[in-house]
Amino acid sequence: MYGLIVKLTVIPGKREDLIGILKESAAEMPGCFSYVVAEDAADENAIWVTEVWNSPASHDASLLLPAVKNAIPRARELVSKFEKVAVTNPVWGAGLPGL
Amino acid sequence: MYGLIVKLTVIPGKREDLIGILKESAAEMPGCFSYVVAEDAADENAIWVTEVWNSPASHDASLLLPAVKNAIPRARELVSKFEKVAVTNPVWGAGLPGL
Repeated sequence: MYGLIVKLTVIPGKREDLIGILKESAAEMPGCFSYVVAEDAADENAIWVTEVWNSPASHDASLLLPAVKNAIPRARELVSKFEKVAVTNPVWGAGLPGL
Repeated sequence: MYGLIVKLTVIPGKREDLIGILKESAAEMPGCFSYVVAEDAADENAIWVTEVWNSPASHDASLLLPAVKNAIPRARELVSKFEKVAVTNPVWGAGLPGL
């Protein structure tokens, strides 16, 4: 099991645009058990992405999916700061099919 | 929709014990769409809990559930540091029934 907690800060006013790109690109990723996109409640330019994968390999492979490859350069134009806050080993989840 | 990203640091050696308590207490919480417990990959004494709820009220109500009320004092004994890293508004999730 492999998890990521990422904080993305966008160029002011671009949060909705980035959320749209993430929705498109992350809808069908093999080995992905959970991928939650959330607005930060205190910072109108911040987004949190929390991910659960069956393995690091599935995460790495997702970066080569056509929808994801297509999204990455468009997302980069909107993101001013990318923080990998944590790499995790998910061990249990309510509502998570894989755990 | 309401989300929390919490980092818990445990007294050294107590991470497994805390995970056990969280599993017991969080298994049946009305209004909870996702509750993932994950070990930090870099810090053997840290745990991340990422939560998605249908409302802040459901989260608050969960604190009064018997299993949760029972767990809180036991968990407190094991936790040396509690950090509410982010309060969020989840807007989309792959693998999340409520979104």
